[in-house]
Amino acid sequence: MPLTKAKLKELRGLTSRKRRDEKMVFMVEGLRLIQEAVASDHTMVEAYYTSDILEHPSGQALIQKLKRKSAHTELIPARDMDAIAETVTTQGIVAVLAQKTWSAESVFQEKNAQSIIVAVDSLADPGNLGSMVRTCDWFGVHGMLIGRNSVDLYNPKVLRSTMGGIFHLPVVENVDLLPALSNAKAMGYRVYATDASGEAHFDRVRFAIKSVIVFGNEAWGVSDQIKQLADERIAIRRYGAAESLNVSVACGIVLSGVHRLYDE
Amino acid sequence: MPLTKAKLKELRGLTSRKRRDEKMVFMVEGLRLIQEAVASDHTMVEAYYTSDILEHPSGQALIQKLKRKSAHTELIPARDMDAIAETVTTQGIVAVLAQKTWSAESVFQEKNAQSIIVAVDSLADPGNLGSMVRTCDWFGVHGMLIGRNSVDLYNPKVLRSTMGGIFHLPVVENVDLLPALSNAKAMGYRVYATDASGEAHFDRVRFAIKSVIVFGNEAWGVSDQIKQLADERIAIRRYGAAESLNVSVACGIVLSGVHRLYDE
Repeated sequence: MPLTKAKLKELRGLTSRKRRDEKMVFMVEGLRLIQEAVASDHTMVEAYYTSDILEHPSGQALIQKLKRKSAHTELIPARDMDAIAETVTTQGIVAVLAQKTWSAESVFQEKNAQSIIVAVDSLADPGNLGSMVRTCDWFGVHGMLIGRNSVDLYNPKVLRSTMGGIFHLPVVENVDLLPALSNAKAMGYRVYATDASGEAHFDRVRFAIKSVIVFGNEAWGVSDQIKQLADERIAIRRYGAAESLNVSVACGIVLSGVHRLYDE
Repeated sequence: MPLTKAKLKELRGLTSRKRRDEKMVFMVEGLRLIQEAVASDHTMVEAYYTSDILEHPSGQALIQKLKRKSAHTELIPARDMDAIAETVTTQGIVAVLAQKTWSAESVFQEKNAQSIIVAVDSLADPGNLGSMVRTCDWFGVHGMLIGRNSVDLYNPKVLRSTMGGIFHLPVVENVDLLPALSNAKAMGYRVYATDASGEAHFDRVRFAIKSVIVFGNEAWGVSDQIKQLADERIAIRRYGAAESLNVSVACGIVLSGVHRLYDE
């Protein structure tokens, strides 16, 4: 059955951040991401699929899971799918999920002895944010804080670039970073700001068992206020001529160093 | 003076890889990249600019340098600039440069005692290749080899993402990697293939003073033939749930490890 005009309009509206935040939902597209979503504890609101997805056994299995987990699951014409999906290759499936309402505090109250948190300050590029979520997922980071003025976590390009990481660790958005980081310090965390002119090379730093590592904007880095609040400013030594590293690459390098020191 | 129709067509044609390779040239856009180009030993063929660029002292200085260095420098109307440039924000300047005709052999014949070479095998994403050139530039890598079937080095998105790195180290494209890597071994290089199921964790590897490190395609990694040819297969240990790391992030992590061992 074709979707009603009103429903099409409602679903298309989810490409707008304002509308997503009003409704506290977001949309994910494609088999792989939706498999990860279903396996997570995220609340599935509704899912739409075309007959294409039923041609593969993994697609059929996913629809069965969705039927058990989401309030509404519906077969729609390919034409409607094209109208509501952002990507060209949706593989014939989209799902609407409830946004999580984690607080920064809940992330800091990690039950494990070790707690590594990554915070981003005014990050602008969707590919960078997505890649950083993926990298944090790889290195077993316990949670991420996305500062205000950063790119929207629920931007479709961010979601795709996380490669499912968004469903594996708590990622809190819209965080007012200065009070959150002060709070973290009061709770026993040590705060590290990455800074090209930082005094400590990341490879020489022995990260605390409870650490928050802050990465900044692509052009101007971590804000001065946060650099001042941080316990240490850490850098990655340069050997060549480049002016800077991509921030998501820097994130991977620093996180590999965090673990190296624990492993030794 | 407006450009002739024939000249407009010729310059617009440079958006096509085929045309670029026939003429052995490529186009770069924007103040920053062209400043790096002029400071390098690349041959500048021609440059076009609008009156916008003359409004800033750094723009005026760049035009003076270009007039000394390139065969042809011309002020054109904004309308022509919009027609020939790929990006929306060219800042009113584009330049055509000669492609370098480095060979893989010339890169291996590095004069320094230490020589770290990065090779990429069937890399597909322009942002990844550009970011890898930038990262290699940061870590002082001595040269890069781009295997056949990889994204074109002179793709505008690749060039932009290198952040000028393309002008700081030799990057050889269209390399037939299997014979090139065999040749490297014969010349005393040790070849490392990155491989998620590799036997050696990168952090435990003591890289040889002459090393080639190979990174693979985003989806299927380094090809089996190259993995077999390699002296070692190296991995980055995983601590979380992600299935893989982004290849340009992996490149940064491994290169930070190469230097760590030399520094100790």
